[in-house]
Amino acid sequence: MPTITRLEVQDIRFPTSRSLDGSDAMNAAPDYSATYVTLHTDAGNGLSGHGLTFTIGRGNEICVKAVESLAYLIEGRRLDDITTEMGRFWRELTSGDSQLRWIGPEKGAIHLATAAIVNAVWDLWAKAEGKPVWKLLVDMPPEQLIRCLDFRFVTDALTPEEALGLLRRNAAGRADREREMREQGYPAYTTSAGWLGYDDDKVRRLAREALAEGWTHFKQKVGGNLEEDRRRAQILREEIGWERTLMMDANQMWDVDEAIANMRRLAEFDPLWIEEPTSPDDILGHAEIRRRLGSIGVATGEHCHNRVMFKQLLQAGALDYCQVDAARLGGLNEVIVVLLLAAKHGVPVCPHAGGVGLCEYVQHVSLFDYIAVSGSLEGRILEYVDHLHEHFLHPVTIRNGRYQVPTAPGYSISLHPESLSRHVYPDGAAWQDS
Amino acid sequence: MPTITRLEVQDIRFPTSRSLDGSDAMNAAPDYSATYVTLHTDAGNGLSGHGLTFTIGRGNEICVKAVESLAYLIEGRRLDDITTEMGRFWRELTSGDSQLRWIGPEKGAIHLATAAIVNAVWDLWAKAEGKPVWKLLVDMPPEQLIRCLDFRFVTDALTPEEALGLLRRNAAGRADREREMREQGYPAYTTSAGWLGYDDDKVRRLAREALAEGWTHFKQKVGGNLEEDRRRAQILREEIGWERTLMMDANQMWDVDEAIANMRRLAEFDPLWIEEPTSPDDILGHAEIRRRLGSIGVATGEHCHNRVMFKQLLQAGALDYCQVDAARLGGLNEVIVVLLLAAKHGVPVCPHAGGVGLCEYVQHVSLFDYIAVSGSLEGRILEYVDHLHEHFLHPVTIRNGRYQVPTAPGYSISLHPESLSRHVYPDGAAWQDS
Repeated sequence: MPTITRLEVQDIRFPTSRSLDGSDAMNAAPDYSATYVTLHTDAGNGLSGHGLTFTIGRGNEICVKAVESLAYLIEGRRLDDITTEMGRFWRELTSGDSQLRWIGPEKGAIHLATAAIVNAVWDLWAKAEGKPVWKLLVDMPPEQLIRCLDFRFVTDALTPEEALGLLRRNAAGRADREREMREQGYPAYTTSAGWLGYDDDKVRRLAREALAEGWTHFKQKVGGNLEEDRRRAQILREEIGWERTLMMDANQMWDVDEAIANMRRLAEFDPLWIEEPTSPDDILGHAEIRRRLGSIGVATGEHCHNRVMFKQLLQAGALDYCQVDAARLGGLNEVIVVLLLAAKHGVPVCPHAGGVGLCEYVQHVSLFDYIAVSGSLEGRILEYVDHLHEHFLHPVTIRNGRYQVPTAPGYSISLHPESLSRHVYPDGAAWQDS
Repeated sequence: MPTITRLEVQDIRFPTSRSLDGSDAMNAAPDYSATYVTLHTDAGNGLSGHGLTFTIGRGNEICVKAVESLAYLIEGRRLDDITTEMGRFWRELTSGDSQLRWIGPEKGAIHLATAAIVNAVWDLWAKAEGKPVWKLLVDMPPEQLIRCLDFRFVTDALTPEEALGLLRRNAAGRADREREMREQGYPAYTTSAGWLGYDDDKVRRLAREALAEGWTHFKQKVGGNLEEDRRRAQILREEIGWERTLMMDANQMWDVDEAIANMRRLAEFDPLWIEEPTSPDDILGHAEIRRRLGSIGVATGEHCHNRVMFKQLLQAGALDYCQVDAARLGGLNEVIVVLLLAAKHGVPVCPHAGGVGLCEYVQHVSLFDYIAVSGSLEGRILEYVDHLHEHFLHPVTIRNGRYQVPTAPGYSISLHPESLSRHVYPDGAAWQDS
């Protein structure tokens, strides 16, 4: 079995702010960026693992620094040493160095850095097994999968034994669901037409294009000027009609009472959910908004920083849709704990995507969730944004508004060597002509 | 008025792990460290502001990097430009650069870095006014003080108008309370005897020394081996008797049910509170522990990362003692919001201290809290740890178990130039002889 000889980390940035791709009320001009990790091994065949955490530009250098500080915890380790008891490895990485833990704990730059490293291990493991990550997970015996997880601080809501029960519960239909996914793909929605920085004509044009491509679920950004939010909702409803689904995303712009008041003004456009109506830390605030809004669902999670926060969102009845992020939690191990918590509480998981590589990641998460954990597609829909996929060796494939099942070994997160060299910050060519 | 011409940041570390000072169940071998900020100005008299955030060693380099990334938001600003509307400045620093905000938001390395910068501004402002920070605050008209604060995400619990009412409520007795503090000082407790890494003889000796110095409240670390926790509690009770007060601190080691079970085994030693019984993010968990433990108080806050979390701890009835930290929140502005939230909920604030400089900081916080916000000493007691004070230009002074009122202008956080040069990491002399 290979040994991880060296961790390499790169500061990769795409100058997306030039076109206002990805603009929202909180994040006016993001430069989609990645703290990109490569785990080099001593395998003769050039086997290596890739992982990234996603940021929106400045601050990526801080995550890079955090990865460098964590690197000593993985360099020199044998892959099978890690994978035999991956939950223990995860605990060591997040808590084994209490000095590094202090600047989180399990949040902020150090946890984003953890995600990049942990996901690179999964990519490496899956490549060594010759399988895509979702298939590695689906084929893993439940007992082994449980040993990949760390239940610290969530045992009051979910014990390892309960988790094992959840995994065994749906064992019967697995093969059918896997076949269904290979044939039909996983349902998705598009955010591409809804960015705040786009003018009305661009919104209208992108909505029409998306309709023509077969999309049925559309998300718009709100939280700027309320009248403009209403006008753009009107345009979108004119284009997509009322039989298709509209979601809204406020990107944390509002206080609790403000969120309720504003959504009452936007209710006439019949949104399925309001996403991130307030601070991502405000569990009780989300519960209050949900209680008082009634028919509009509450969605959050892309900035929810660890399993302890998700546990409480579920305990407090604060969520209709759980939007876990593949690179803000400490990598796939912690994401799986959240899938299990959500399954126990009967809340659908609709992962956050977009950015750089998040779509590539979460297709694996949702496939595993459907086939092995929840066993249901009800209320489940996966975000899709049509940005930056061309930079990946194995980009996502969408057909008729559905993610097609990835088949290449790994976590689909490896970037083209030319894309890397062009977008290394600040020396890459993409940053020289600005 | 001076202009801030340049921000300088230094990585300062003290090799405290060599003596196990500060050891606890989660943090076995900390090297107490500071991300130390100097705001240089163009004032002819050498006026500068100092602030630090506290870490326990590795990871300090990440906070240093985060300060460097934030520096552009303050360099070149006039001091009075900032102080006239300091709440706006705080919002700009925490949310004005949405790219940097992303890697928090308002948590982890970026928020720790914010604390160092914001506290340096308060130090600078107080020095420019020739007052210690607590006195600057006490003398400030309530309307101006409110303009220093950012109520974003907490208006459902506390509006600016309510906060103004709280400040005006206690205006009458201010002069008396200030005189009382100058004469008697602020009551404190000691953690010096209770560290986990000390052997029984050292615990006994330090407890006796503390008794001789007039201490009446003692804290011990728990969360390692339960039988050893019990043995050390027994030793402490033998030394301090039962009429004095014992507190316990588990430093996040337990899950919720485990905390309850273990504290039932430790209840016979009559602890006033259990501190950090579980994850600092677990608001509902703390509420559950408090409800089920009954007579033992629940204390937490040193790792509580922002005002939104404190708001919820108070809303959920999760706290008997609010242990706000002066350098984990985004500096003094956010600490004051928490003081006001706690006052509204009638929960005493007992700030976390120890580490490097935290005692120096929090004496200002508690003096202001008593004189201008809560108006009460009931259930209030300030942590004291006898470590590293000799490195400060104006260290805290303790007499008969009470903090004596600081009188030097500023936030008491300036380090001796020799201490700085000796402990710069990794090149300082303190790190060369290891």
